Amino acid sequence: MGDYAIGVDLGGTNLRAAAISRDGKLLHKVTGAVPVNGGRDAVIADMVGSIETLRDGLPGQTLAGVGVGIPGFILLDAGVVSVAPNLPGFENFAVRDAIEKRLGAMVILENDANAAALGEQWMGAGRDIEDLVLLTLGTGIGGGIIANGRVLHGALGMAGELGHITVSPNGYPCGCGNNGCVEKYASATAVSAMAQLLNLGQGLSSEEVFHLAKSGNERARMIFDTVGDALGILLGNLINTFNFPLYLLGGGLTAAWELFEPAMRKELAHRSFIYRNNPPRVERAALGGDAGLYGAARLPLGRTLL
Amino acid sequence: MGDYAIGVDLGGTNLRAAAISRDGKLLHKVTGAVPVNGGRDAVIADMVGSIETLRDGLPGQTLAGVGVGIPGFILLDAGVVSVAPNLPGFENFAVRDAIEKRLGAMVILENDANAAALGEQWMGAGRDIEDLVLLTLGTGIGGGIIANGRVLHGALGMAGELGHITVSPNGYPCGCGNNGCVEKYASATAVSAMAQLLNLGQGLSSEEVFHLAKSGNERARMIFDTVGDALGILLGNLINTFNFPLYLLGGGLTAAWELFEPAMRKELAHRSFIYRNNPPRVERAALGGDAGLYGAARLPLGRTLL
Repeated sequence: MGDYAIGVDLGGTNLRAAAISRDGKLLHKVTGAVPVNGGRDAVIADMVGSIETLRDGLPGQTLAGVGVGIPGFILLDAGVVSVAPNLPGFENFAVRDAIEKRLGAMVILENDANAAALGEQWMGAGRDIEDLVLLTLGTGIGGGIIANGRVLHGALGMAGELGHITVSPNGYPCGCGNNGCVEKYASATAVSAMAQLLNLGQGLSSEEVFHLAKSGNERARMIFDTVGDALGILLGNLINTFNFPLYLLGGGLTAAWELFEPAMRKELAHRSFIYRNNPPRVERAALGGDAGLYGAARLPLGRTLL
Repeated sequence: MGDYAIGVDLGGTNLRAAAISRDGKLLHKVTGAVPVNGGRDAVIADMVGSIETLRDGLPGQTLAGVGVGIPGFILLDAGVVSVAPNLPGFENFAVRDAIEKRLGAMVILENDANAAALGEQWMGAGRDIEDLVLLTLGTGIGGGIIANGRVLHGALGMAGELGHITVSPNGYPCGCGNNGCVEKYASATAVSAMAQLLNLGQGLSSEEVFHLAKSGNERARMIFDTVGDALGILLGNLINTFNFPLYLLGGGLTAAWELFEPAMRKELAHRSFIYRNNPPRVERAALGGDAGLYGAARLPLGRTLL
């Protein structure tokens, strides 16, 4: 059992951690001092320190355990990160055991996109829904699939690589070796790259392209139509595959929701007869950047309920 | 409990049924006399007659129940067929109750592609595997997804519509309303249609195109390259989505496996970094046309084991 759990989010540039009560209230939140690319030992020490700060702030309450969301592939049984391009020194390192030993508490690792999906299912837009997909539109596109209330992991913890679904077979080359991955058309990075291709400006952020589109710039609007088209093909494929009741979109690019939603829904209706005849919910996620903290904290709480 | 179950396959043109023992031995098999489009009441009577024939042939043994694979969408809890274009009169009809009443035995309905996937998992190429996808390449392309040893159904029993995954966004129009569905490129029907487009001949069957390709006809070989390319995109998407250990291909078109496999695997390696780095098994299914009978029979046997 335990009164609360601590969720850690190693994603992005910094470490964040939160204490969350068994009934889903965020009690305290802290941000680490060390950038995640500052070296493994420094990051581990920072993580343990952040967790201890949160635990010390809740005297008399019992910690159920710690969940850690990590941008990479996790070998769940071993508690090892197998692939993590943005975390130098973490690959093939037994993260779980290293933290457990220092804390004397149960630690569970999870891919960050999966943790965010679990967070939305627990306390976000997916409450009372057992089956959902969360797409996180950021630097790339992350995917988390919840089936029967649990994360779908696949054989090697690599399920949910939805950013690399092909939406344009002869399209832009992707770092993964494919052409036409959806994240080359519907991530924040893709929006900046398309702005450059259309001579809107060098090095524009996706926010800047968004503001150009809002102010009526036709080429900027075309970019968000492309975002919507690509998401419509991806979501049509997912709906035809899963027939789930809920598909959520989170991440920074959803600030431009109003700009890409019309093209996305038009394309969805084209691509999926299930969407046309029995439309599931396709919506913005609710928890923003905290989804991963909720989901990570949910892991040890769910475990103790078994 | 029960010693054996009866699986019924309403797919294709005729009704087939088999008695299968608890440990997966096919004991007897019968084929119905009435074509499935011969009207609902005649088909129901034929089905009940076939089941009774099988039951009468096994005196002293206990029937666990009957599973029925149906080419359509099933509302599982209600035991009702919601959509079944090839079964006149069955839509919105309470098939399960109608058969249960006449037989005095438990009846469970299932989509035919899902039943085939379950059959392969139980006694075919997927034994000892808990997670797999079966693609059936026939008139169209059917899909069945087994996760944690169970059929993934989705909200309305419509999961696994894998024939309608988009592999060519501006491609051939499909009856479902989409363009570029994989079944327009990699089904038996698609092979015949492409043969006509390439002026190989009017009304050639996929077998005839297969024999032309085997005898060295270049245009016929191109068609099977296209089949392989389309399957490679589909399977790449599935591997990136599920990270399952096994993907099976069944159905009549897999007679041409040797012709489309090279293009399929090349495209798979292009589309999925998971396939390149941690290749799952991608293989032919093992049970042929009997997969659906095994899977349908498995349904009541699995139920009583709970």
